[in-house]
Amino acid sequence: MTQSESDDTRPSERDVALIVGGGPGISSSCAKLFAENGMRVGIAARNPDKLVLQKLEKTHSVRRYACDASEPAAVELLFQNVVRDLGAPTLLVHNIDGRVPGIFRKGITEADPGMALDTFRNSAFSAFLIGQQAARIMRENNADANGTRGTIIFTNASAALKGFPSSGAFAMACHAKSGLAESMARELMPQGIHVAVVPIDAAIGWTQEDGTRAHRLAGTTVDDNMADPDRIAETYLHLHRQHRSTWAFEVVLRPWLEKW
Amino acid sequence: MTQSESDDTRPSERDVALIVGGGPGISSSCAKLFAENGMRVGIAARNPDKLVLQKLEKTHSVRRYACDASEPAAVELLFQNVVRDLGAPTLLVHNIDGRVPGIFRKGITEADPGMALDTFRNSAFSAFLIGQQAARIMRENNADANGTRGTIIFTNASAALKGFPSSGAFAMACHAKSGLAESMARELMPQGIHVAVVPIDAAIGWTQEDGTRAHRLAGTTVDDNMADPDRIAETYLHLHRQHRSTWAFEVVLRPWLEKW
Amino acid sequence: MTQSESDDTRPSERDVALIVGGGPGISSSCAKLFAENGMRVGIAARNPDKLVLQKLEKTHSVRRYACDASEPAAVELLFQNVVRDLGAPTLLVHNIDGRVPGIFRKGITEADPGMALDTFRNSAFSAFLIGQQAARIMRENNADANGTRGTIIFTNASAALKGFPSSGAFAMACHAKSGLAESMARELMPQGIHVAVVPIDAAIGWTQEDGTRAHRLAGTTVDDNMADPDRIAETYLHLHRQHRSTWAFEVVLRPWLEKW
Amino acid sequence: MTQSESDDTRPSERDVALIVGGGPGISSSCAKLFAENGMRVGIAARNPDKLVLQKLEKTHSVRRYACDASEPAAVELLFQNVVRDLGAPTLLVHNIDGRVPGIFRKGITEADPGMALDTFRNSAFSAFLIGQQAARIMRENNADANGTRGTIIFTNASAALKGFPSSGAFAMACHAKSGLAESMARELMPQGIHVAVVPIDAAIGWTQEDGTRAHRLAGTTVDDNMADPDRIAETYLHLHRQHRSTWAFEVVLRPWLEKW
Repeated sequence: MTQSESDDTRPSERDVALIVGGGPGISSSCAKLFAENGMRVGIAARNPDKLVLQKLEKTHSVRRYACDASEPAAVELLFQNVVRDLGAPTLLVHNIDGRVPGIFRKGITEADPGMALDTFRNSAFSAFLIGQQAARIMRENNADANGTRGTIIFTNASAALKGFPSSGAFAMACHAKSGLAESMARELMPQGIHVAVVPIDAAIGWTQEDGTRAHRLAGTTVDDNMADPDRIAETYLHLHRQHRSTWAFEVVLRPWLEKW
Repeated sequence: MTQSESDDTRPSERDVALIVGGGPGISSSCAKLFAENGMRVGIAARNPDKLVLQKLEKTHSVRRYACDASEPAAVELLFQNVVRDLGAPTLLVHNIDGRVPGIFRKGITEADPGMALDTFRNSAFSAFLIGQQAARIMRENNADANGTRGTIIFTNASAALKGFPSSGAFAMACHAKSGLAESMARELMPQGIHVAVVPIDAAIGWTQEDGTRAHRLAGTTVDDNMADPDRIAETYLHLHRQHRSTWAFEVVLRPWLEKW
Repeated sequence: MTQSESDDTRPSERDVALIVGGGPGISSSCAKLFAENGMRVGIAARNPDKLVLQKLEKTHSVRRYACDASEPAAVELLFQNVVRDLGAPTLLVHNIDGRVPGIFRKGITEADPGMALDTFRNSAFSAFLIGQQAARIMRENNADANGTRGTIIFTNASAALKGFPSSGAFAMACHAKSGLAESMARELMPQGIHVAVVPIDAAIGWTQEDGTRAHRLAGTTVDDNMADPDRIAETYLHLHRQHRSTWAFEVVLRPWLEKW
Repeated sequence: MTQSESDDTRPSERDVALIVGGGPGISSSCAKLFAENGMRVGIAARNPDKLVLQKLEKTHSVRRYACDASEPAAVELLFQNVVRDLGAPTLLVHNIDGRVPGIFRKGITEADPGMALDTFRNSAFSAFLIGQQAARIMRENNADANGTRGTIIFTNASAALKGFPSSGAFAMACHAKSGLAESMARELMPQGIHVAVVPIDAAIGWTQEDGTRAHRLAGTTVDDNMADPDRIAETYLHLHRQHRSTWAFEVVLRPWLEKW
């Protein structure tokens, strides 16, 4: 056997991963990969009874939690329950898109203000609440073999990289999430907490019940021009395993055929 | 007389400028400069009875409006009143910092969620509301000599350029405002509306009653390491007068001695 | 007479402007505008006998200099001659694109290395040489009414903002020029020298002999989707006149219909 | 055994890695890690007889090549020799800093133009030459299990992210390298070649003969505020193993205690 990347990685069996936002894409892929690497895994979602999550519970012992992540009290309760059930989280993934459907592709003169505010609350504000609770817990963790007390990863979207036309509300939310992540990184990294943001500059596919890959955007076909969430999860795991001498903050992922 | 910059600028006397946010810094400097260049000027503030605004009414015929710019209905009413009193705005300045005092220099674990949300509402969300109403009106304006139907300028802060530690809530708000501005620029510029954002990467001074300059940050002295709002206003006027063949979107202003 | 932007600007008649790079676009527009505002103006070009430059000499008393700006000794001599003829420069514009024609739209596997190196020498390296001589002189200038000892403006291209495919050599040169400008800004601004870079994110038109506007790219028509160099020059003048309490470093200019 | 990250990675034993630039930091760490993962590895350096490289030959069968990477003919010959000895490269690392010592911390008015040009030639221009040869070969490779024909990774420095004062020449070179990488990424990614740039925003340590870590900057002590090249190499390997549905282009690495 050759020496390999994994020799010096942390003992994952002591890791506790909490994934906020629950769907068949990145969240499911992370839950599987983290569990397969020995972590105890929880997923929080508004509706934790989705079939995809029930299945993860059976196949990967993933614990399911109901939580509206835009509500301060609900987020506080979530972390109390996770600590009680699984232990203190060492890896947090915030994976909520948050767009209210009615805001999609609306010009600035048409977009509903209430929907714009809700999009922010669902996305950046929930990231603030989740990140706040995670930071409170992680700074009390012992450092692992890589010197890490905990890792906080925020998924983000193309709208964090560029303000597209007819997407003002989503641009606000995604830029806000990036700004929060950057502030938290500068604040928490010297305390041993690795904060990262991963903008996925592409549509994201997922694996359907029948094993084929599906596409997030209705009316598009499944081709190479979308990101595979199983591969996104691998980069999240790599980020978690980085030694604190070499932490990455922002990693943009995009498919080889994506225009940018 | 030599040919000069001003020969081909718009007839400012037909300009209507609305400044949202009213204090003794950028808002007052803009109000004065715009009025001195022949514009009709309105200022909206939560408290329009501040002495500095009363004085501007007397010296520069500036019209004062009471408005909580984070309330959709209040913003809609504001624009109805401005159109009735002054005519359709051709120049809008959104100049609200929006930080709730209690959020200032709070770490992510200490910051109050309600204050974080209020900071967003005061800042980026009010920019959304104000920008929406301005866009609805300006796209119906005739183009001026520079091909411009209207100019929308958002003041922003250093926190839009960088997420500083212990400033997560403000980073969210300022990044959100930048993302909104960029989306609006891409959407509205092809419709003849010039959208710009001006991050002031410095503390801002202002002129006091006695004519001396004061500094925004308590405990600091007045020196060259702060931005003079009278000069900031000049760049706003320059942006408004740019021909549509050469519009700038983002202009960061900082003093010569500022570290960056 | 109303108070206006120009009341507090510097006495331009003491200004000496040197424009490096000589063509019928930005350089000519700058030369005219600067002369019309009372400055003494010199233009340096590889071939100073171009008709457009001879005409500027007649109409605007612009002094012409022959100079290969990629040669250290030639640049040193140029500044000696300008100081002797016009006085110490207070405004420098570096306006050289520098692309060797044969490098245009060549993929990385096809691009000729010698041409790539020449493109760098013409563009970023000449900016280094010119900027070096300008800095040596300007730091000895007295500060003007705005606190400015001198202004150095580098024109740049879209390739400074984004590395386009099949444009690696030009991306190198334009990014290099931006990096140089940023380093010089941080170094020289505290010494009273304003350094700015202006990427023009568009094709640039110019005024032909018959008064019509022409387009820089062969085969395209003259429409609104190009930048008017007369308007670019106005922004350069505005940058030169900014007070040192509010200097802009980077200003990207693009037409209203440009995609970005 | 649990399913893990490595299950779906490429059969590294068919990989051929070429590392350009040879020292006891990143280059040595990459050579070891790549060899330990089954790759055939070559290192090119101006002086391939350094003890650290001779040792790598003995312990990890690393092949050594003499090459001045700023010379087109030398680079062409290098690739011919590597293909002959090891096979067509599938992983290229360009790891040359390139600074001429005499340019270090020189202000713009003091920096020697010849040294500035040499710094560019050593750094960005050699990246152009190396990248060109690698692209010519890799586009003919078969795609591996991740859909990758080859991976080209450019190491970069903090000066690529920010133009520091008294560092104009190095800012030019590092920005140029980033611009080149971005152009190559947009051009080559749709051809199945993964191009990435990794700015190391820190001083870099290395392992000395006696096993202790040393620091790149004289006069500083070995502490956590420097990047461990063994860990940098892990991120390079991760980049090489990313599936083409989720390629990262830029990954900035910095230690937890680094200010940014």
